Amino acid sequence: MERITTNELSSHIGSQVRVMGWLHALRRMGGVNFVVVRDGWGTIQAVTEDEAALEPLQGLNVESVITVEGLLVSSPQAPGGIEIQQPRIEVITPISETPPVTLSKRELKASLTTALDHAVVANRHPTRRAIFRLSASAMDSFRSTLRGRGFTEIQTPKIVAAATESGSNVFQLGYFGRPAFLAQSPQLYKQIMVGVFERVFEAGPVFRAEPHDTTRHINEYVSLDVEFGFIEDHFTVMRLLREVLATILGDFAERHTPELQLLNVQLPAVPATIPHIHFSEAQELIWQRHGVDVRGEPDLSPQDERWLGEWAQQEHNSDFLFVVGYPMRKRPFYTHPDPQRPEFSNSFDLLFRGTELVTGGQRLHRYEEYLAALAAAKLSTEPFTWYLEAFRYGMPPHGGFAIGLERLLMQLTGVSNVRLTTLFPRDLNRLVP
Amino acid sequence: MERITTNELSSHIGSQVRVMGWLHALRRMGGVNFVVVRDGWGTIQAVTEDEAALEPLQGLNVESVITVEGLLVSSPQAPGGIEIQQPRIEVITPISETPPVTLSKRELKASLTTALDHAVVANRHPTRRAIFRLSASAMDSFRSTLRGRGFTEIQTPKIVAAATESGSNVFQLGYFGRPAFLAQSPQLYKQIMVGVFERVFEAGPVFRAEPHDTTRHINEYVSLDVEFGFIEDHFTVMRLLREVLATILGDFAERHTPELQLLNVQLPAVPATIPHIHFSEAQELIWQRHGVDVRGEPDLSPQDERWLGEWAQQEHNSDFLFVVGYPMRKRPFYTHPDPQRPEFSNSFDLLFRGTELVTGGQRLHRYEEYLAALAAAKLSTEPFTWYLEAFRYGMPPHGGFAIGLERLLMQLTGVSNVRLTTLFPRDLNRLVP
Repeated sequence: MERITTNELSSHIGSQVRVMGWLHALRRMGGVNFVVVRDGWGTIQAVTEDEAALEPLQGLNVESVITVEGLLVSSPQAPGGIEIQQPRIEVITPISETPPVTLSKRELKASLTTALDHAVVANRHPTRRAIFRLSASAMDSFRSTLRGRGFTEIQTPKIVAAATESGSNVFQLGYFGRPAFLAQSPQLYKQIMVGVFERVFEAGPVFRAEPHDTTRHINEYVSLDVEFGFIEDHFTVMRLLREVLATILGDFAERHTPELQLLNVQLPAVPATIPHIHFSEAQELIWQRHGVDVRGEPDLSPQDERWLGEWAQQEHNSDFLFVVGYPMRKRPFYTHPDPQRPEFSNSFDLLFRGTELVTGGQRLHRYEEYLAALAAAKLSTEPFTWYLEAFRYGMPPHGGFAIGLERLLMQLTGVSNVRLTTLFPRDLNRLVP
Repeated sequence: MERITTNELSSHIGSQVRVMGWLHALRRMGGVNFVVVRDGWGTIQAVTEDEAALEPLQGLNVESVITVEGLLVSSPQAPGGIEIQQPRIEVITPISETPPVTLSKRELKASLTTALDHAVVANRHPTRRAIFRLSASAMDSFRSTLRGRGFTEIQTPKIVAAATESGSNVFQLGYFGRPAFLAQSPQLYKQIMVGVFERVFEAGPVFRAEPHDTTRHINEYVSLDVEFGFIEDHFTVMRLLREVLATILGDFAERHTPELQLLNVQLPAVPATIPHIHFSEAQELIWQRHGVDVRGEPDLSPQDERWLGEWAQQEHNSDFLFVVGYPMRKRPFYTHPDPQRPEFSNSFDLLFRGTELVTGGQRLHRYEEYLAALAAAKLSTEPFTWYLEAFRYGMPPHGGFAIGLERLLMQLTGVSNVRLTTLFPRDLNRLVP
């Protein structure tokens, strides 16, 4: 008999079925025995009053890998409304030890440390799986939105000769007797590739040697990067970002209701046009509404961002807000200034419920501008010779953005620590599992 | 007027159009001037006898970024059968220097060193773009085949605490005062994830510190990894691999005729069932057909593989051949033995025209088997404690494979060096661009 996965069972009611998976739970309740099997998609319970049917499970523990055959019937009181009756059980991989975390409760009751130390097993918990299934969906939606708009996927090197934006916070490795570094972002390469394909994207790992031990920092994460040419200015980029986010969230709603329910997630609406406010107006607004004079500061504080998030909610009924025009002095050397007010930049941050979610903007595109910008930043051109070649031989106005996949998931699902949206997080203290 | 990309021009014949891109070539032939514009998708020529129309290009070189507006007409003698007449040219980014490689010839006439040193510009050449467009297509087809079969995409850490399979050929980095390594493969993590999702895939970078300077080696490449559970044996894996390859090649044929033509590529047919031969029979065959006694050797030589490729062509009319049952002693510790002949393994190599293309097989799945295998390989269990947890708490029979994206492209397109199927290759001597 062919195996049927739990997500396809509902079309087999009334038939003999064969399921395979892990022994999720074995419950004996007053002469009635429930065998819950978990496969890669969900769970199904088998029910029997016949003790002999449980004989193969004698002495075995949960997470044993088993096959259950039996009659699939509708059963209103069963979870999911179906169950297997008259089960015949076979053991594929017997397990006798007790797992380090309990997988069969609705929530994973384990400390963060235990959950991470034993992520190999803890990630089997349905709520953990739900997050990673959403994560896979987000990558897929990201790519499909962009492919549909003529973007080409690229894979840029992760071993690089120099730090992308600054010399600190970069991991160094030995490369055949020379020093090399792990890429902090594909920024320089994705810009170069605008010269090749005009519209490019990459979903890949980036590495930041930031010695921060916070709930929002990990040292290796997945960056969803976009860069494209022939833009008007940063507003062209912001419109594309809005499309990408709307597709990611729309696909969540369409394809992942079970995961969203399991995680108690209420998805935000993405407005047709996400409201925006200029950096200087934002500072003015904070001064007027909250009496805190942040005017002249080069950046927004987390408190400032929260206030702006509240304002966007009240004023625009929006969970999302673009802050545009950050001061040039806090932005990296390749940032394009606002032609009208050159102390401000053609860049943006996207706030989601008062927290930064995405950064992006327009970049410089003329060779001379790069020479001037590097000089102004007191950076030597020599380590950038290869990069500057793109601009020396013709680049259009361009820009892009980068979404941190794990932070996106953290903010959308309300999980308390970014480590919990990462399969096997890397932080100050953690290199295994 | 809205900009139209070159791949969409054919539906605008007879209209005024606006194209944007790079000045690919400027040719003056007996009073007629041809301005060829290249955008992210292709090229279009504008033609004029009016010298004044070329005024904006005065003193400029190719790769200047320009806008051309004019009347799009059918023109049988024009490349692609269409051209722009009465062009009005605007310059977006003027370029006066001559690029380090010539992009407007049908082939890229540059030494390998020049092409790689100036990859930032050389990758703009239509034949270079064609390869990377196929590469993006292969990643997309890989993922879509697998998603359609219930696989979940994963992203596993690239910074790891120990080498995957052996301590050599691994890049070491400093990780907050401790040593760490770059992952040579996601092997251990993708197996663990079979315990979570049953069916997983990953397309991401892997790092090999192999000090080989050959046409087939690079030190960072993209690995297309698959792993899944509840398999019968390695033949289940081989059938899935066949489906993946057939989809990749089918999508090439369906979506990428221009790229295939530009590269002069004849795609191979993927047989409904790819023929297979056992390792020991393969050695016997070589002895009988070629009089070379390789029986008892632990592996096949490149010459052996070429002979087997010829045999598959003659005997099965197939460009593809699976060799199964490689001796256990040359395979990594997690390899599953053939239950009938335990000196051979449930593993395979896929040969394409006599060269290895993909490796895969069934893995051990019982905890005790791992303890025995590590002991037999004289490896300590300690660095693998986290990995072994997957098996300690229940794993089904499983297996998978890994396709090297760049080598796949190299073999399918017939390019002479794997560096030419990589945007920015990393080798013994090359860290930039």
